[in-house]
Amino acid sequence: MNNLPNHKIPYLLRNGEGERYLVGRQLATIIASGESTDNLIEMVILSGGRGDSFPTHKHLHSHEGIYILHGRLELVIANKKYLLTEGNYAYVPAGTEHSYQMLSHRTQVLSFTSKGAVSQLYSVIGEPYDKFVHPPKAVNEPSIEKFEKASLAADVEFFFDHKVVGTSQLVENGEVPEEAAAPYVLETGEGIRLVTGDQLHTLMTTQANSNGEFIFVVSEGPKGEAIPEHYHEEHTEMFFCIEGQVTLWANGEEVVLHPGDLLHVPANTVHSYRMDSHYTKMVGILATGLFEPFFHTLGDVYDDYIFPSEPARLRFDRVLQNLDILDLKVLGGRPAKGY
Amino acid sequence: MNNLPNHKIPYLLRNGEGERYLVGRQLATIIASGESTDNLIEMVILSGGRGDSFPTHKHLHSHEGIYILHGRLELVIANKKYLLTEGNYAYVPAGTEHSYQMLSHRTQVLSFTSKGAVSQLYSVIGEPYDKFVHPPKAVNEPSIEKFEKASLAADVEFFFDHKVVGTSQLVENGEVPEEAAAPYVLETGEGIRLVTGDQLHTLMTTQANSNGEFIFVVSEGPKGEAIPEHYHEEHTEMFFCIEGQVTLWANGEEVVLHPGDLLHVPANTVHSYRMDSHYTKMVGILATGLFEPFFHTLGDVYDDYIFPSEPARLRFDRVLQNLDILDLKVLGGRPAKGY
Repeated sequence: MNNLPNHKIPYLLRNGEGERYLVGRQLATIIASGESTDNLIEMVILSGGRGDSFPTHKHLHSHEGIYILHGRLELVIANKKYLLTEGNYAYVPAGTEHSYQMLSHRTQVLSFTSKGAVSQLYSVIGEPYDKFVHPPKAVNEPSIEKFEKASLAADVEFFFDHKVVGTSQLVENGEVPEEAAAPYVLETGEGIRLVTGDQLHTLMTTQANSNGEFIFVVSEGPKGEAIPEHYHEEHTEMFFCIEGQVTLWANGEEVVLHPGDLLHVPANTVHSYRMDSHYTKMVGILATGLFEPFFHTLGDVYDDYIFPSEPARLRFDRVLQNLDILDLKVLGGRPAKGY
Repeated sequence: MNNLPNHKIPYLLRNGEGERYLVGRQLATIIASGESTDNLIEMVILSGGRGDSFPTHKHLHSHEGIYILHGRLELVIANKKYLLTEGNYAYVPAGTEHSYQMLSHRTQVLSFTSKGAVSQLYSVIGEPYDKFVHPPKAVNEPSIEKFEKASLAADVEFFFDHKVVGTSQLVENGEVPEEAAAPYVLETGEGIRLVTGDQLHTLMTTQANSNGEFIFVVSEGPKGEAIPEHYHEEHTEMFFCIEGQVTLWANGEEVVLHPGDLLHVPANTVHSYRMDSHYTKMVGILATGLFEPFFHTLGDVYDDYIFPSEPARLRFDRVLQNLDILDLKVLGGRPAKGY
């Protein structure tokens, strides 16, 4: 279909596809909505050029993650100015004021929010758009009235007289806070690193950070085998490819993701994946975040920043011992084509 | 084959494939050599982690281009320190001292050089490596003796007592110098921009810069049609995919490139390409640089930084009027599967 569904089903969206709105020169492409995830998570790709910005705002109920796909982004969070580059990440909990300005001629970020009531704002401040890439010039900028109207329709509140002075600092941080309600930023590769066999998983947002609403994990690996087919009874998984190629199976259907492609895998969808490139990187948003213990159970704490040259021992035995506390139903085998 | 050939033929190398050497923790993957291009151009992918560096050196005869694929790179050129991010570019003419330090946990750059006598250095300072990704830790760092030995085998001279103090500046420059022999850097998207129908071509190195040895051009576009089949009698073209998907035809064979894949198209190879994604970006190295007038003939100067929302008029009529001065033989049609 390649269209954003209006109810919760497994779906695939290729890079560029989704529900699209033009806001000034920026293109907002909604690839997961409250409707398509039953209010678990929303995902929007924001693309624009140098100088394109978004005014100071906060979400009262939704936590937000911002992951840089391309270019440089100046992001102000709670009056601190950061300069983010490719693969950098910012976590913005509910109630935290934030704004951004795109610094590169083509800047593209993935923004995701919990609870399902934020992405409606783009249909209020923007216009439906039938192209797939932001235009060279803005047609018209949204009025303050439109932003105010958006506050009535979505979990967003704008502040227009907010100016933050000073220069932004390149993100170099590597600390994920242990407590909730703290905004933070992370340099690419930083986070809680756990190795599972040949793959490296980096938790950039934990259950503790998001009050259990989601976890955000970066997974990297070499060409490998498909993981065993399984499903979850409670949580939804979003697979978004960043580099290389990954084959996924969802309810028996095989799809191949390339960078920018998304697969939505809601609860009770039998699925598996296999990394197909010498270097594959994907990000996963898991909502709710109750599956985090799986990564600590299967994974071993890892000090380095690239997956091991020789695979570590895969401790699936530890997963099998803890199946009663994990939201995981493992089927017998691997996908037929996965061997 | 997916192996680097030892003589000049059309070839495809998938992301990660090539002739590989480990230098400390860095992986040097040679994807074009003097042998494979008949001494027209060499291309090496350098991958490593934070802190991995390369000592000050210069090439006596070869001009070099450095394009950032992933992460942040601190690059010193003629005693000036730059901080480059994804898509930034540096041009380092022969005789210019330069060195680098990788700043990100995974930093990856494409380095290419003219004339065909530089890439031998990696087999001297490094060890053959059978994996495709740099390892978590260095096995051993090359000795000064090895670097000195490399100077005897390749067009490279090292300087070990060279320290440059001060902090590096983020690259924001947009000026391509008109004269040769000047090093320069460019921010992503900057260069001499020419639009051809639905596509935007950005010249980052011109004939004038490289004394005619090569041009370096970034091409971006939406899903489109295949360009007419053609060949060149004198120059070689390298197609390297950065984002999205591009289908190429070379002597009747169809290949699909994804990010990091390379197709080598030497003179007298009938070829065509078609961009297949909503946003496709590839870089081209054309050696020698004598084909640059084609871009000025077909293209129109363009002020913006993203291809037009509605295609500009394609001035192929201007190309046909100038076929006598262009290294271009146009065949009748488009590739059979290209429609």
